[in-house]
Amino acid sequence: MKILLTNDDGINAPGLHALQAQVRKAGEVAIVAPDSERSAVGHAITTVDPLRVTEVKRDGKVYGLAVSGTPADCVKIAIKSLLPWRPDLVISGINQGPNTGMNVIYSGTVSAATEATMLGIPSFAVSLDSFTAQEFGPAAEFARRLAGTIARKGLPPGVLLNVNVPAIPQGKIRGVRVTRQGMARFSEEFHKRIDPRGHAYWWLGGDLLEIQEDADTDSAALKEGLVSVTPIHYDMTAYGSIALIEKWKLKK
Amino acid sequence: MKILLTNDDGINAPGLHALQAQVRKAGEVAIVAPDSERSAVGHAITTVDPLRVTEVKRDGKVYGLAVSGTPADCVKIAIKSLLPWRPDLVISGINQGPNTGMNVIYSGTVSAATEATMLGIPSFAVSLDSFTAQEFGPAAEFARRLAGTIARKGLPPGVLLNVNVPAIPQGKIRGVRVTRQGMARFSEEFHKRIDPRGHAYWWLGGDLLEIQEDADTDSAALKEGLVSVTPIHYDMTAYGSIALIEKWKLKK
Repeated sequence: MKILLTNDDGINAPGLHALQAQVRKAGEVAIVAPDSERSAVGHAITTVDPLRVTEVKRDGKVYGLAVSGTPADCVKIAIKSLLPWRPDLVISGINQGPNTGMNVIYSGTVSAATEATMLGIPSFAVSLDSFTAQEFGPAAEFARRLAGTIARKGLPPGVLLNVNVPAIPQGKIRGVRVTRQGMARFSEEFHKRIDPRGHAYWWLGGDLLEIQEDADTDSAALKEGLVSVTPIHYDMTAYGSIALIEKWKLKK
Repeated sequence: MKILLTNDDGINAPGLHALQAQVRKAGEVAIVAPDSERSAVGHAITTVDPLRVTEVKRDGKVYGLAVSGTPADCVKIAIKSLLPWRPDLVISGINQGPNTGMNVIYSGTVSAATEATMLGIPSFAVSLDSFTAQEFGPAAEFARRLAGTIARKGLPPGVLLNVNVPAIPQGKIRGVRVTRQGMARFSEEFHKRIDPRGHAYWWLGGDLLEIQEDADTDSAALKEGLVSVTPIHYDMTAYGSIALIEKWKLKK
């Protein structure tokens, strides 16, 4: 199995390092990742500027390629220009911090996996449910086994998996739940400040809100100590609302 | 009705100007838009850098506020910090170029409307089906009437509308079709070049592919000379695949 790894925390992130250490046991691995952190970039692609590509070494050996672009850029350019082979699987992560609920739409980690699926390659995103904890081991092992499962079973066309893993020791993880995207979001507020030249600027701040969520959501699974696996797709059509809008009989 | 307008082509774009000229007839309008073009930024938000806000005047009067961020940033900061009122409706556009099919996921125009819906405010995105034509009139008039319809009927929670208008004279537009997101996409290729210092760089190029699409898709409607209205939502869960993934009986 040929596997492309990427992320949005940048090529030097410890989550990516932990992921590749495990996934190398499952197949041939290539890393193409942003040259620095690109969190909250959504599904951005770089069209106005050119992309630069730099070889990154670790312990004297080639570790991967760093790209001056977004996670979605990395997947596009890896598959279309940089890799000597077409991957059988793309894994994005391990992200430092959960990608659940409404936040999924801002996620560079998820967008990289989505981009792979749009290019017809099975993929998943994997995130650790902590902005600080460095215990990526259980998430990396889960990703390695999931890679094997996807190799055997495949994924439905246009569907990828968004995986979130509790930041607790392997022995304390209680299992796996297939979930839906919940309503998790940040309490957002802008802090207005004045710079040394007397000009105003605004800075986005906020914390994850504590929301009571249904048991079948991604966040609820994490709270119960379960790995959350949400199948997602890039078709945003709200099929359930088509008949309603048709009744409006809109005129040109 | 209080209406916030934004876009991804930047505050000086002619599509936004045409939109505001029409929508002012339907209510009180505020413009908060990126200070320059932010196409293909997806649902990016700016977290690492501060945002700057500049008042833009036209003909000696305040036209709107220019923000040094993405379309989603503009909606967030407008609603949370800049506007004296909470809008009843957010309209994003008129985009220069269609936002159909797979390309919707890259769209800054659509992401701004999506952000509004995530904040609980009805919204729609509107795009002109041409990268060059400047006839925004029919799209602007359609947007004004749609604003009135939404004011009367509301939108289902979590659902927004993605509107695309053919770039043909009003008299030639054949009607309106409620559609689903099709498979329209660009043929993407990276052009590798060498800079004057001898270093390689890559540039993303490509054209909209000609794909045969079902009649109920956004692109097919445009080809038939119809306005396309697609209800979309930010819940990316692939509900139809949950049972299948559950059968995998994934272990932690």
